[in-house]
Parts: sequence; structure tokens; C-alpha cells
Amino acid sequence: MNRSLEIICIGNELLIGKTLNTNENWLAKRATALGISVRRITTVGDEVDGIGEAVEETLRRRPRFILITGGLGPTHDDKTLEGVAEALGRKVAVNEVALEMVKGKYEDYFREGRMEKFKLTPARVKMAALPEGAEPLPNPVGTAPGVLLEVEGSYLIALPGVPSEMKAIFEGSVAPLILMEAGEMGFFEESIHVDGIMESALAPLIDEAMRENPYVYIKSHPKGEEGRSHIEIHLSTSAEDPQEAQRRLEKAAGTIHELIEDFSRRE
Amino acid sequence: MNRSLEIICIGNELLIGKTLNTNENWLAKRATALGISVRRITTVGDEVDGIGEAVEETLRRRPRFILITGGLGPTHDDKTLEGVAEALGRKVAVNEVALEMVKGKYEDYFREGRMEKFKLTPARVKMAALPEGAEPLPNPVGTAPGVLLEVEGSYLIALPGVPSEMKAIFEGSVAPLILMEAGEMGFFEESIHVDGIMESALAPLIDEAMRENPYVYIKSHPKGEEGRSHIEIHLSTSAEDPQEAQRRLEKAAGTIHELIEDFSRRE
Repeated sequence: MNRSLEIICIGNELLIGKTLNTNENWLAKRATALGISVRRITTVGDEVDGIGEAVEETLRRRPRFILITGGLGPTHDDKTLEGVAEALGRKVAVNEVALEMVKGKYEDYFREGRMEKFKLTPARVKMAALPEGAEPLPNPVGTAPGVLLEVEGSYLIALPGVPSEMKAIFEGSVAPLILMEAGEMGFFEESIHVDGIMESALAPLIDEAMRENPYVYIKSHPKGEEGRSHIEIHLSTSAEDPQEAQRRLEKAAGTIHELIEDFSRRE
Repeated sequence: MNRSLEIICIGNELLIGKTLNTNENWLAKRATALGISVRRITTVGDEVDGIGEAVEETLRRRPRFILITGGLGPTHDDKTLEGVAEALGRKVAVNEVALEMVKGKYEDYFREGRMEKFKLTPARVKMAALPEGAEPLPNPVGTAPGVLLEVEGSYLIALPGVPSEMKAIFEGSVAPLILMEAGEMGFFEESIHVDGIMESALAPLIDEAMRENPYVYIKSHPKGEEGRSHIEIHLSTSAEDPQEAQRRLEKAAGTIHELIEDFSRRE
């Protein structure tokens, strides 16, 4: 079991470039901030077999958390749970708790006058059809519940693709689980910006700074073109004690500034 | 061999959510527009083994094109080509053509007064170290060349992660290869917007429209929340003849409008 997290995004709109994948970015940022390490992100289309393969491969790497987004809605091409069930060799069946959640939502809509008739159509019941052994997670802002499965030590969690729903279920049901796993560990970061030095000239200086600061990961991000170069140097570290983290980042930033000064004098 | 394309994105900044992955979106959109089908996108961090595994797994699915972005620069954590070499069981060695490209770039910078001394440092030579059998692709706007390998019928192509460089090498060297593969096939799309119908009510109508229009893929994208629902219905088709594609999309859009009218009368 790895103390890590993987994300699987589902939707043809991502593969044809119609939709910019802001969901993966939001989830990656939140999970990292909660102290767990994101190892891989996989995006596949709305096909049961493709989804099943991606889930199976991800389970084989044994991350502690697998977060899936997209494909939980009422339409025919919402196939995530079928894909998950295929990967696990389980059946999909209507879950009574989930059905109550879905029913409650439409009853509310009906009461509020947002629907003319209250009907539990097959498309609506579909959102309560979960892989066997799954637990529904309440969706405070939409109809499709999230889904939680425990599979050989991994939490497999499916969230809707609509950003507001994904975020609400994440904060309500997933963040507490991750926090429990990550314990006191936090992620800390800082950026330095430098001008007038090429990334290729900076490269050996960053190597040296990383040797001197083994707990800090340092990465350069060229923002201009080589030549009229503007570079962001990003420093990050994971630690239980925020003060310790701050100390590490400051020391590493100091090392980099010194090395750049030395370099500029030499050139 | 599948007439398809996969994308692999490399960079810790993507996994910590620091950077929104606009590269995958741009590549997916361009490849789709050129007539090839994008099947999967994988994002991994700056680790040789992780990159090697992702490349190996992707090769096993035998897509015609594998586009890799990120990790080609001069710094220590630019590890893409090491990862590719590991996946292929090949060595990395300085490629003379690539070295001339890199050298030429720095000579230009020196002549233009953007560098004070001209030096071919190890960090700069690193950008010319390619897996054996690879061919460098000219980078019109930066220093690190792109890299092309043919592996058992797949084109494995590595591009820099800096968007301007990635796009320039793609348009100059990759788009022509994809066009050759895709032939006359093009991708066509259109969106309809509907208000006041819930996605769950729309679901069976879309199913019916797809049965009546087998060459058109129809997908609903809820943009509001269920209740005060605004839905984008996206229609797409691949065809050699743009007029045929247009005819298909119009017919499918017509079917959807009729079905929604019928539905509204019934309710």
C-alpha cells in the first residue's frame, strides 16, 4: 500500500479538448494541501471497457486513494460505475440508501416547483445503481451521490464531473478521510523569481542547492523564452511542523540566492 | 495498431496542482481537429521509473501516436528521455544532429548579446542526449529539440513543456505526420443549448436521438444545477466529407429539438 493518491478523469469532452480539465487541477491541489502525495492522473473516455482498464491498472499500483471524477449522471454515457464494477468483477445494483438520497432530491425539486411532475424515471434510478459493496456519499448540491468502495486497502471514490458537486462531496466526505491518512503532514511551498539568467545556466546551481537542502524539492519553470529569460524557481517540502517547513524553505531560498550571486560575479 | 493517439504529460507541478494542464487540452484539441482520435491522457511526475512505466504501458496499447510533453530541458529534473530510454531498453547518448541544433541556438543568443560568454556546458549538452535511434525535431522558439522515435509501428514524440515551444514543434513536425495518418478524416462538432429541462429528463431523449443518428455522438453537459438547469448538448461526428458531416449534425440537432418539443407537450 502506498501512502499516495491517484486521480482518474472520465469524459470524451476532455479527450477532444472541448473542456479544460480544471477538476484534476483542483483535486491535485486540495489533496496535496491535505498532505498526501498525488502520483498519477489518468484521463479516459466514456467507455465501460476503457474505464474498467484504467481502474484495474490503478488498483494494481495500490495507492491509498483513487479519486474518479465524471460519468455519474443520469445519461446513457455516464458509465463510470459500470466500468468500476467491471474492474472489480462485481455487479451493479440499486442501493437503497442511494435511492433514498436521489428520491429525496427530486421530491425537494418537486416541492420547490422546479419540476411539474414527480417521477422516479429509469434515468433517475440509474444514479442509485452502485457496484455491490459500495456506500453512497451525500451530494449537497446535486442529485448523483458520490460513491465510496474499499478495495484491498484502497479507497476507491467516485465523484460527479460537475465541479460544484465534485467539490462539495470532496469537502464533505473525502477530505476528512485523507486528513486521517495524512496525519499532521502538510505541504509547504514558496516561489522565487529570477531574471537575466538562462535556465541552462541555472541548472547546475539548482542541483547544488538540492544537494545542500535534501528535504526541499526545487524546480525551475521558465516563463519567458531562453535569452530574455524570466524563471520561477519553485521550492516545496512536506513536514509535520509548519515552522520546520518554513525554516527549510528559507534556508534553501538563501542557498539559491547566494549561488546566483556567485555565478553572476564569475560570469 | 490503433489509429489513435495518447498523450503523456510529465511534471510534478501538474501533480501538486500548481500548474493547470493547458498543454493536454491544446494537444487534444489539435489532434482531434486533425482527424485522429485521442484515447487516453496520462500525467506522471519527474521520476525516471514513473515515466518509464507510463511509456511502457502506453506502448502496450499500441496507439499510432504517443505525444509526451515536459521534461526535455537542461535541468536535473528534466528526465523524460531517460524514462523513455528505460522503457525501450535503450541507452541515451549525445546525438550529433541534436547537438548542432542546441549549439546553433546558443551561438545565436551569444551573437545577439543575450549571453556574455558562449559555453556548451553539461546542462546544455544534456538537451542533445537522446535515446538511441531517435531523431531530433527542430525547436523554432527555444533550445531543447523535440524527439521522434519509431517503435513497433508507433510514433513516440517528446515535446518540451513550455507551451510556445510545444506548439511550435507540434505545428512544424508533428501535425504533418498526423495529417498523413488521418487522411481526409475530419472532426466536426456543434452545440445546442437548452433551458428548463433537467438532465435526467433529457437522458432518454438523447438515447433516442443517438439511435436515430448512429454516426453522431451526443453528450449533455449540465451547466447550471439540476432544477434551474441549463444544459449544453454537444454533437460530434468524424467524416471525410464536411458537407456529409454538416448534414448529419443538422439532422441530429433536428431530432433533439423535436423530441424536446414532444416531451414538453407531454409533461
